[in-house]
Amino acid sequence: MLAFAASDLASAFEMGIARGVERACQKRGWSVQILDAQHEVEIEKRNMGRLPDSGSEGAMVLPTWGNNRCIEALFRLQQTRFPLVIVDRIPPGLQADLVESDHEQGAYIATKHLVDHGHRQVLMLTPPPLVSSIASRIQGYERALIDGGITPRSDWKIWLNLELQASAFEQHRRWLGGYSAMMPVLKKTNPPVGVFAVDPYTAWGVYEACRELGLRIPQDVSVVGFDESEITQAMRPPITIISQRTDDIGDAAVDLLQKRIETGAARRERRRVYTHVVVDVDLIERESVAHV
Amino acid sequence: MLAFAASDLASAFEMGIARGVERACQKRGWSVQILDAQHEVEIEKRNMGRLPDSGSEGAMVLPTWGNNRCIEALFRLQQTRFPLVIVDRIPPGLQADLVESDHEQGAYIATKHLVDHGHRQVLMLTPPPLVSSIASRIQGYERALIDGGITPRSDWKIWLNLELQASAFEQHRRWLGGYSAMMPVLKKTNPPVGVFAVDPYTAWGVYEACRELGLRIPQDVSVVGFDESEITQAMRPPITIISQRTDDIGDAAVDLLQKRIETGAARRERRRVYTHVVVDVDLIERESVAHV
Repeated sequence: MLAFAASDLASAFEMGIARGVERACQKRGWSVQILDAQHEVEIEKRNMGRLPDSGSEGAMVLPTWGNNRCIEALFRLQQTRFPLVIVDRIPPGLQADLVESDHEQGAYIATKHLVDHGHRQVLMLTPPPLVSSIASRIQGYERALIDGGITPRSDWKIWLNLELQASAFEQHRRWLGGYSAMMPVLKKTNPPVGVFAVDPYTAWGVYEACRELGLRIPQDVSVVGFDESEITQAMRPPITIISQRTDDIGDAAVDLLQKRIETGAARRERRRVYTHVVVDVDLIERESVAHV
Repeated sequence: MLAFAASDLASAFEMGIARGVERACQKRGWSVQILDAQHEVEIEKRNMGRLPDSGSEGAMVLPTWGNNRCIEALFRLQQTRFPLVIVDRIPPGLQADLVESDHEQGAYIATKHLVDHGHRQVLMLTPPPLVSSIASRIQGYERALIDGGITPRSDWKIWLNLELQASAFEQHRRWLGGYSAMMPVLKKTNPPVGVFAVDPYTAWGVYEACRELGLRIPQDVSVVGFDESEITQAMRPPITIISQRTDDIGDAAVDLLQKRIETGAARRERRRVYTHVVVDVDLIERESVAHV
């Protein structure tokens, strides 16, 4: 049996990964145990502690973001020599096998899409770069601006408030973080403006803020989100997004973990080799970006 | 370890149950193995066959609907005396512990909500009653009409095409079944009309059909859906729904399975006792129903 430890199974992206992992295990005859930290660092720490005695031969871990306290538990788990593969985002300083999307390229494509549609004022709505995926996305965003002849401005990066975000998740109002961060910015910004939002919930928050302020999407505010989710097609207008290949990520993670289990002994050697798999992303064009 | 075998983890409702089961197991110190039939009867049959040797001490099964071929596999599993609890819907003829929502009451409340808002023309959009949950919902719908002084009409029940539904799920266009069933009906119906839709995707299909025909929700077409999902709040207007208490269902299922495992010997006795747990549902009012 293998284990998949999620940070927050209520998120559409992580659920997609869980399904991908389950399918890949099914194909290979493994059974899979699921652990959900419910976006709570304390539960995540407990889950990491339980893994070595869980009956699983190894685990794929998608760690919480926005809080580095989980790193200790991950380090401790790694010291037990329990086979481990990190999925999607790796906390700074941890050395482990990693499967992730090409976050840098995803953010680059999203931002370039806005720039190619004529936007010269392009904001990025994001949490602070506490994990690798977010740091990469910020890099991709800035690279696309520079390639488009636009100088990145620090006040174009709109930071999500992580505490607010956590309480909004608890209240099942996942859009609240994006909404609160964008309201003051949109009030003083002259349209047209382009916004690259870091996940579908944050993008949804932009929609709510625009609705309240009477701004039209896409005519006044063009939005590109990240991650496919049920809401991205149900929103009006349906939102253009960067989609992560969750099935491929799940498949690669199971593959890597299987190899890690088979070559478990190698970890006692003086030279430790980790594998890093990067999976392509796709732009899905819908109706949230206008030519300006 | 316990197992949870879902019919289709990509559905918001089943994912909610999976999270509820995971939480309940975490609380009680069980680990939980997840199996996903991906809405495919063949995979479900294989999953049922695997369970006795899966390392799990018992399983909660949420069976596929719309196809009775899965019953055989469930009967066979039960004959192995593997501890079993059915969740949400039980195929006809199977005797087992069951945890489900009060589907009849849910449909009653949904329909009564439309009748109380003045609707005299109230359609129900549903698959044929091949499983208990759907049969109960149809009963609840008809009881609410009769209590409201309205005679149920057979042409008010709009049947979803199950084959179309299956292929729409595969194409990630879960709204297509509801859309296709409603289009011809809405074309020849005089507004205002009330529609009770059997799940959030089907309700989404009604929205798409209304959009295409230029019908306004809720002024022309009032809609009540079933099940909470991310889309129900993101849709415009946000949709009034009957919400199932997925956390309570998961908790009750784990509880029941634990008792079934402990009293496993009882199943060899001449008198077999099964427990049936019915969990309340809630009406969540949003903006998809008009007074007419």
